[in-house]
Amino acid sequence: MSIGAQAVARCQAWRHPPFSDAPDGLSRRYLTPAHRAAITEMTGWMEAAGMAVRLDAAGTLIGRYEGTGSKTLLIGSHIDTVGDAGAYDGTLGVMLGLGCVEALAAKGRRLPFAIEILAFGDEEGSRFHSSMLGSRALAGTLASVPEIFDAAGVSLAEAMRGFGLDPTQLPLAARARDDVLLFLEPHIEQGPVLEAENLAVGIVTGIAAQTRLKVGLQGMANHAGTTPMHLRRDALAAAAEAMLALEEIALEAGIVGTVGAIEAFPGVSNVVPGRVSFSVDLRAPTEAVRDAGGEQFGKVLQEICGRRGIVAEVQTVQSLDACYCDAAAQKLLAQAVATCGVAPFYLPSGAGHDAMSVAALCPVAMLFIRCLKGISHNPAEHVEVQDVETAAQVMLAFFELLAGQ
Amino acid sequence: MSIGAQAVARCQAWRHPPFSDAPDGLSRRYLTPAHRAAITEMTGWMEAAGMAVRLDAAGTLIGRYEGTGSKTLLIGSHIDTVGDAGAYDGTLGVMLGLGCVEALAAKGRRLPFAIEILAFGDEEGSRFHSSMLGSRALAGTLASVPEIFDAAGVSLAEAMRGFGLDPTQLPLAARARDDVLLFLEPHIEQGPVLEAENLAVGIVTGIAAQTRLKVGLQGMANHAGTTPMHLRRDALAAAAEAMLALEEIALEAGIVGTVGAIEAFPGVSNVVPGRVSFSVDLRAPTEAVRDAGGEQFGKVLQEICGRRGIVAEVQTVQSLDACYCDAAAQKLLAQAVATCGVAPFYLPSGAGHDAMSVAALCPVAMLFIRCLKGISHNPAEHVEVQDVETAAQVMLAFFELLAGQ
Repeated sequence: MSIGAQAVARCQAWRHPPFSDAPDGLSRRYLTPAHRAAITEMTGWMEAAGMAVRLDAAGTLIGRYEGTGSKTLLIGSHIDTVGDAGAYDGTLGVMLGLGCVEALAAKGRRLPFAIEILAFGDEEGSRFHSSMLGSRALAGTLASVPEIFDAAGVSLAEAMRGFGLDPTQLPLAARARDDVLLFLEPHIEQGPVLEAENLAVGIVTGIAAQTRLKVGLQGMANHAGTTPMHLRRDALAAAAEAMLALEEIALEAGIVGTVGAIEAFPGVSNVVPGRVSFSVDLRAPTEAVRDAGGEQFGKVLQEICGRRGIVAEVQTVQSLDACYCDAAAQKLLAQAVATCGVAPFYLPSGAGHDAMSVAALCPVAMLFIRCLKGISHNPAEHVEVQDVETAAQVMLAFFELLAGQ
Repeated sequence: MSIGAQAVARCQAWRHPPFSDAPDGLSRRYLTPAHRAAITEMTGWMEAAGMAVRLDAAGTLIGRYEGTGSKTLLIGSHIDTVGDAGAYDGTLGVMLGLGCVEALAAKGRRLPFAIEILAFGDEEGSRFHSSMLGSRALAGTLASVPEIFDAAGVSLAEAMRGFGLDPTQLPLAARARDDVLLFLEPHIEQGPVLEAENLAVGIVTGIAAQTRLKVGLQGMANHAGTTPMHLRRDALAAAAEAMLALEEIALEAGIVGTVGAIEAFPGVSNVVPGRVSFSVDLRAPTEAVRDAGGEQFGKVLQEICGRRGIVAEVQTVQSLDACYCDAAAQKLLAQAVATCGVAPFYLPSGAGHDAMSVAALCPVAMLFIRCLKGISHNPAEHVEVQDVETAAQVMLAFFELLAGQ
């Protein structure tokens, strides 16, 4: 069985109990029995490949395949999932790393650096309302266990103790910078770009800078039958104009802007909406480009609202800086991709990943794998075995290129 | 006290118990104790003015002031209200009719036609989910009592019996056509046009033809971060474009088009909306103009959706024909308005009124009275006494013009 076929088969098997806490539909949340089952099976595979295995204080499973040098290449992603999840988000990256090490071990090949496969236990934040706990602990940016609770009221510290982890030991999960060469995260794209480009894999340039806004528009509610168009202060019409302006700004700047949520008040068919609130999600490869888009949107919004007699209030809900993938690693990945007969293609990631957190520790690189229609966080998530095998071959080629430096 | 001041004072007094069923805020629903209290007081006023008073089988209070001829001029509106209502919607028209008859009676003036003041008990439909029960019974278009229930599960027939009405007698509420000259309904505008025109009263040309649509747009839900703008099928962006198109169509045609309700699914900030549904309310002076607007909207919607990869489904929820006010009566009202020193101004009604139902029986006319900012169905509903007095003088002048014919 090829590395790709093996990785896909393992992800598929993990869709069901005991690797899922739900009888139907995959749900593998942090520090649950399904998480434990996954750790146990993964430990067996790692040990069979001659790796030294340990669980760090944050519940990240780490398998180490020794090299001839002192530095370490970290490879990994997360094995937790959202509710009713797909099989590949996160997990596939871990399986690919494991498969590559198994291939090296089978040939007795040792590289001038060690490889560690990391299986983070929490990236999604689907159990506690905080995400990337594993990768943040690794990077040393999570100094202590936050006081957060799951839906059943269990605290994170309590859940850790129940899992055999000592919350007071969390700082020990932080890695020493000097030991680490690079963090490589293989991951499904969760978007439609590679499919549209007809490419199996792509090289990630960075993870987008993101801003989330909440926009409130106050106009005047009126009778839909008795208020002439020119005497209206229709908050929803103003919102419509603002949404199209956002779309145009994003298209022109080559970034993404989304209105995902909207509410109109009073929200009945025969009343002109007096108040509307809607969300804005703006992402760009750099903070500067994102901020320019945001400023442009703010200006256009004020112009629209001034003209329509609407009062606009814009609130910044969240603002995340961009994370840049290591330039040298991108170049090396491109060489490796070309070696496998695929045209090197660079793309930014609009979604957040563990690599964002690990970037606080060391240079990071990401390899995206094409997925069907970009569907993710959904049981319909799908990858082609051939694409996964291409990713595995790219990774092996990348190891050799890195070894040659 | 002037007729106008008296009418306003009576409306104000009826804002409170026993004329309201709510201790705070006006609520006078069909066949309730508040309705009974209003009927009792109104009966006293009518009898004091020398009118013969009866309650018809639908609970409409009718006071008859005899004339010298055999025909009857009907004047009236409704005395029921929505919840937390204003004082004037409906009720003011009845008080104005009553006040005019009181003025005639005080002078011993008999006209060549009788005048009947009608106080309909249900126009709003705020107790049962069917409206204009009183005026429909009068027009003979409500043959039997519909099987409908209020929020407490009381049937309409049961409520009628509890009020001393016999549901089986409902057909007897229908008026003979030959007896009736015209129905005149004085009513607050419930819109901002007369205020914008700086006019106390206006002559209604008709009640708008109305269409209510429900539009469903099906696109594709996608990750807001990973889906480039050009690969999206954003149902909300399509809806935004459709809303602006509707606004433009209405502005150009001089009609009104409103999107009052909208829902986006899944409705979260980081997902491109895959599905949207919204309401469309379209009103125009004639069915032809309304239908032309509707067809134009449908075409533009298809164009927008075709271009954006969206499937649109349009459902007609309701379609009401226009009601035209009698041309001769409009002319006579205009003369009467001019007599009172006001420039005759014609305007359509975007809202429905009892006159719509009575139009099945006889010619109808409506006189609109300016109200503050067009606010209605709201405790802030307000009219100026001077405007109401102008309306009273217009009505008295109208009687004399009608008498002279």
